[in-house]
Amino acid sequence: MMLIVLGNTEVSTIPGISVAGATPELTKLTPPADAEYLFYEKPKIIDVIPVTPEGHPTPAIITKAAKELADFPVIIVRGGTYLAPLVPHMHISDAVGRDFRKGKALPEAVEIIGRARIFGEQLGRLGLKEIVIGESTPGGTTTAQAVLWALGYDAKTSSASPDNPQSLKAQVIEEGFRRTGISRGDLANKPFIALEEFGDPMMASIIGISKGFGGEIVLAGGTQMLAVAALLKAMGEEMDRFMIATTKWVVNDRSSTFRETAKEVGIIFYSADLDFSRSKFKGLRDYERGYVKEGVGAGGATWLAVKKGFTAGEVAKKVDELYERLMEMGKG
Amino acid sequence: MMLIVLGNTEVSTIPGISVAGATPELTKLTPPADAEYLFYEKPKIIDVIPVTPEGHPTPAIITKAAKELADFPVIIVRGGTYLAPLVPHMHISDAVGRDFRKGKALPEAVEIIGRARIFGEQLGRLGLKEIVIGESTPGGTTTAQAVLWALGYDAKTSSASPDNPQSLKAQVIEEGFRRTGISRGDLANKPFIALEEFGDPMMASIIGISKGFGGEIVLAGGTQMLAVAALLKAMGEEMDRFMIATTKWVVNDRSSTFRETAKEVGIIFYSADLDFSRSKFKGLRDYERGYVKEGVGAGGATWLAVKKGFTAGEVAKKVDELYERLMEMGKG
Repeated sequence: MMLIVLGNTEVSTIPGISVAGATPELTKLTPPADAEYLFYEKPKIIDVIPVTPEGHPTPAIITKAAKELADFPVIIVRGGTYLAPLVPHMHISDAVGRDFRKGKALPEAVEIIGRARIFGEQLGRLGLKEIVIGESTPGGTTTAQAVLWALGYDAKTSSASPDNPQSLKAQVIEEGFRRTGISRGDLANKPFIALEEFGDPMMASIIGISKGFGGEIVLAGGTQMLAVAALLKAMGEEMDRFMIATTKWVVNDRSSTFRETAKEVGIIFYSADLDFSRSKFKGLRDYERGYVKEGVGAGGATWLAVKKGFTAGEVAKKVDELYERLMEMGKG
Repeated sequence: MMLIVLGNTEVSTIPGISVAGATPELTKLTPPADAEYLFYEKPKIIDVIPVTPEGHPTPAIITKAAKELADFPVIIVRGGTYLAPLVPHMHISDAVGRDFRKGKALPEAVEIIGRARIFGEQLGRLGLKEIVIGESTPGGTTTAQAVLWALGYDAKTSSASPDNPQSLKAQVIEEGFRRTGISRGDLANKPFIALEEFGDPMMASIIGISKGFGGEIVLAGGTQMLAVAALLKAMGEEMDRFMIATTKWVVNDRSSTFRETAKEVGIIFYSADLDFSRSKFKGLRDYERGYVKEGVGAGGATWLAVKKGFTAGEVAKKVDELYERLMEMGKG
């Protein structure tokens, strides 16, 4: 079973921070549009799938491909977004993460964890052995890096852009640190404060679900999931029931510290060996050049498909088919 | 696993129709308050549990008792309510059933079925053998009777009052029939029209979930669930994967035609043998005098507890304990 947790943060609208949308303003619609695309031929809240400013398609196309092949159940979770997705979804909250340069990012963090925990407990009672949790949270690598720094990790998170805006991220985070008067590592033993000050509702929701569920959890994502894992660890959770499933594009990203930070957190990871270099479409071939990389649980969905006997190559082939279907609709 | 589907219909605000709330206006809050009470010591949206105008407690107290004993998972589903419950819930829609004397009750019926179906499909992929579905829908016995009449059943639905307002129900339904120009049985082969014209969002949601799930379904409720079953049958579903679980208070209610209509629909039923005659509290002893009877999946929750080895007597004892806890909080 796979959950996709949707989150928004105002941070995604800071120009240059996020390419998870054609414009900073459109990043607000990316989480619901991603969710809808998993269940319909195209999103409902907007007529096209989310793309980067340069037109690269959302990684939801990988999740959808794996889902169509392996037929696993997917439940959408609204951790906190501007708009509700127009598909059935587990409602946790409509709280959006605020710009942490100006004030607390998520005063609702404890409330969200409490609610998400109730949902996680129900999943635990269902007798499921394991759940896979992905996310769609534009701007989320910046909140993740802020949280990791606050907790004392010397981490660089990844980016959906080949030009990881590390100096802008650092500048935004330092501004948030100045507001709160903290330095790196000051919140190492205060994970709830780190989450409230710099986090986003996706993180709070996954923490709550994980605590309530109690069983094995696959965090399906890249460096954002390292922030979630680091928070869970600081809250006293053992890492041995957690693993990360992500893509090789994140693991091999030299602009981030995925491998080092995963080791420091003490969480194991799976890296989906997707290869789009022979795709018919430039938008997909560009994944090999560092565009997009991960999101919407793409790596974890591939992991589920591989566990069911499909190859990463079959997932990549299905992605091409889905992209072709989108192109044909565009012409029609 | 148990789902509780929440629905509202404007019909509950017609004076005299519903006692699922202290006043007609308060019936609007009953579904979210019922849902919240299942997870917390008291509701959040309002400070007290739902009661009849004479102070009889919501049947959610039975569901909560069974849940606390047997520890089964409960997922709240917002089929269509005025307000969202302040607990995690599967959002299907916020469409409220309209007063069918004045216009179509549920123009969104097909849309709701489609969305609920997606959720049901995910539950089916989880490999669950069976799901139990209860509901909280004030005014729902009137929409149920209207649907049953439109489909050609000579049915009387039950009521949460010992004085079943049958003449008022009939008058309201006849007014709706006059608006649409139909007579009893005219929609026997048009279940979607019957649902749109006279139904409520709870019915549409359960129909969609049932179609999507595909496995065994326990409809946890009384005469309202007969309307759901009758619609499903008219839509071509075989009744052999469905059963009803309700209480003896509904089955033995002489003001309704539960037994006869269940036979006519061709659905089997379980009757929870709860006995509140020796309760410490008048509000609960009055269940034996025809107050409340059923709701929020009380009969189905008892069935789940009995399947797990508890007796109906243990459920009744737990209900008394919960009521005592409420009384103590009231004093505090």
